[in-house]
Amino acid sequence: MSFFSFELDPALAADPVFELHKGGKMAISATVPLASRDDLSLAYTPGVARVCEAIAEDPTLYADYTWTANAVAVVTDGSAVLGLGNIGPKAAMPVMEGKSILFKQFGGVDSIPICLDTQDVEGIIAAVKAIAPSFGGINLEDISAPRCFEIERRLDAELDIPVFHDDQHGTAVVTLAALRNATALLGRRFADLRVVISGAGAAGVAITHTLIAAGVEGANVIVCDSRGIIHGDRGDLTPIKAELAATTNISGRTGGIAEALIGADVLIGVSGGSIEETALAGMAPGGIIFALANPTPEVPPHIAHKYAAIVATGRSDFPNQINNVLAFPGIFRGALDCAASTITDAMKVAAAEAIAEVVSDDLRPEAIVPSPLDPRVAPAVAAAVAAAAARDGVAGRVPRAPSTSAPQPATQVHTAY
Amino acid sequence: MSFFSFELDPALAADPVFELHKGGKMAISATVPLASRDDLSLAYTPGVARVCEAIAEDPTLYADYTWTANAVAVVTDGSAVLGLGNIGPKAAMPVMEGKSILFKQFGGVDSIPICLDTQDVEGIIAAVKAIAPSFGGINLEDISAPRCFEIERRLDAELDIPVFHDDQHGTAVVTLAALRNATALLGRRFADLRVVISGAGAAGVAITHTLIAAGVEGANVIVCDSRGIIHGDRGDLTPIKAELAATTNISGRTGGIAEALIGADVLIGVSGGSIEETALAGMAPGGIIFALANPTPEVPPHIAHKYAAIVATGRSDFPNQINNVLAFPGIFRGALDCAASTITDAMKVAAAEAIAEVVSDDLRPEAIVPSPLDPRVAPAVAAAVAAAAARDGVAGRVPRAPSTSAPQPATQVHTAY
Repeated sequence: MSFFSFELDPALAADPVFELHKGGKMAISATVPLASRDDLSLAYTPGVARVCEAIAEDPTLYADYTWTANAVAVVTDGSAVLGLGNIGPKAAMPVMEGKSILFKQFGGVDSIPICLDTQDVEGIIAAVKAIAPSFGGINLEDISAPRCFEIERRLDAELDIPVFHDDQHGTAVVTLAALRNATALLGRRFADLRVVISGAGAAGVAITHTLIAAGVEGANVIVCDSRGIIHGDRGDLTPIKAELAATTNISGRTGGIAEALIGADVLIGVSGGSIEETALAGMAPGGIIFALANPTPEVPPHIAHKYAAIVATGRSDFPNQINNVLAFPGIFRGALDCAASTITDAMKVAAAEAIAEVVSDDLRPEAIVPSPLDPRVAPAVAAAVAAAAARDGVAGRVPRAPSTSAPQPATQVHTAY
Repeated sequence: MSFFSFELDPALAADPVFELHKGGKMAISATVPLASRDDLSLAYTPGVARVCEAIAEDPTLYADYTWTANAVAVVTDGSAVLGLGNIGPKAAMPVMEGKSILFKQFGGVDSIPICLDTQDVEGIIAAVKAIAPSFGGINLEDISAPRCFEIERRLDAELDIPVFHDDQHGTAVVTLAALRNATALLGRRFADLRVVISGAGAAGVAITHTLIAAGVEGANVIVCDSRGIIHGDRGDLTPIKAELAATTNISGRTGGIAEALIGADVLIGVSGGSIEETALAGMAPGGIIFALANPTPEVPPHIAHKYAAIVATGRSDFPNQINNVLAFPGIFRGALDCAASTITDAMKVAAAEAIAEVVSDDLRPEAIVPSPLDPRVAPAVAAAVAAAAARDGVAGRVPRAPSTSAPQPATQVHTAY
């Protein structure tokens, strides 16, 4: 059969990264047999008509008799892709496919990459709402701030399925997990921590929000953007930053990152910039530095260790990698398992606690988070998220553990990972 | 792990059709390894960033390094689902999933069902255009006439990937294939056939257009809608039907289906209604009846056989099933293989000829089309479609047969079927 085959630039074809990405990284498959006329008449016409009629009569059957209850769209407009910036929807696709297969690998979630041909807020909202019936959840990805805040808020309010911007909340959840274990190791309490967050984009805003939801005192948090400390007297604040000014930095400190860090116990860098060593010198001794910019941390780990007892980065080649893959597969697994209508703050905090808990028996300064490959993480996160959804009253059903005595058929999607 | 499990109505759970559809009929999978940190750093960050940067610099690499060149969206608004009518997008999903897995099974196409939460023409067009970068083709499905004509025309004009409304063209292609073999068996010529098409919806309009493109004389075609013969003096014609009036029924015949059938060689029913036996009596002897309404043909086969030498239906339990699955997997396989920008009339006619050719060595009145399961069909259709695309100047590349000496890796998407 004359399937198309590739004629590539020989230099690219010989590169292992490009070799791996050739033809994409994912595929679909049928989970039912299609080998005989009988198979076709069950899976397609005429049999399928009865399933359609049943759903038309009783819409609650939709989740049971379609793949949508396990399907999540990974949606981007390509406006803030990794550290590459606004490279557009098509150039973003390799990341979205990667995300989709990580969803499957670690969460058993059937995820579909959707790269949108619009960067207009209303256009993105309209497109996602239009395709929403096809999915059980929406993972927004690599959409630039401040548009991402409005897009997520509107979609979450207008759709009855979970909407989750991973660049905000995935990062916040794993950061919270790491901070919880770091403070435990240091014998500190959240309520006493003085925290500086460098960066007020998608991740910085969500981390601030989530840390406060988890018990850090807003009064003890200072957020810096590229112009310095965010405080209520600044005249250049977006609505989101004005909100930060109202809930953090209650003492009204002003200045730059160096002023912010004086006496700080924790520095969380999500800025993409760099922070001078002289600024770190003002931190309280024995603290915590998470320098999460990728691929170049705001502070090189060997410098950070001069000023902090525990250091984490976003990189896989240093200890303590703050990697979103620890969060999003389990969070959506849990949300889908219980048919959650949204993902609440408590579900995010529960996810962070579950991630932290996985390594709590063997905490070391260079091992405050699990490996991204640790198979215990996603099931633990899923269970914690579903339980929190039930407590928050946003769960549509009670997840049940699959029977361990009855073997699952090979075609059963939901046990595929 | 607490994946959700199903608590279903026991009556439905015991029904083999519902049992089969439980949890949906499809899944996604990774085609690259994700077992080690090295795997993750190739398939996801940091490795993936280089692929993104390369596509941003050279957009022609998009098709080579993402799954999109093999991915087709099956898009519906649920407005005309099978014979069930406007049951809405969610109740349509089991059909769209079925279509997607048939695409994979017979064409090796990775297909994704998209059920839209809008039935507004502009809303549908905007949504499909927004998600279009994510796919190499768009298969429109079960969208009611006349909206389907405008939606397909606009999308085909505004997108650079193939857009194909299967209810129109898939049906037309397989009908043409069947008619070609039926006329060959009867020793007739297309140019001499007097053809009546009962039904002027999506299928009827496309069949009329395609038969004329294939050599049937427009002057010898009469199309009937629910109000009778379509002719230029009728004041109630939609623009599409006015076009039919201008290109068919040149003698200006008037009346109902009985008047239309006087002297006809061929009756093609795509109306969903029924046709009285008395109307058939006027047909020329030894002709052809295709009664394609599903599940109830316009004419029961045993009645049709009293007035025609060759009879076909849309059903799998009678001989000569006119089934779209003979067409759409191979048509999209061929269009994707050659990166076609559209699907031309010549590509559709070539597809029909390829389908007909598969069984041309063993033509019998009860075997004028291949079985839907015949594995020779899709490759033959794909090759014919790609060749026609090249002749029409709409192919983006030359498809090459994969090497038969070099084994394909198991994770190679494009040879997966």
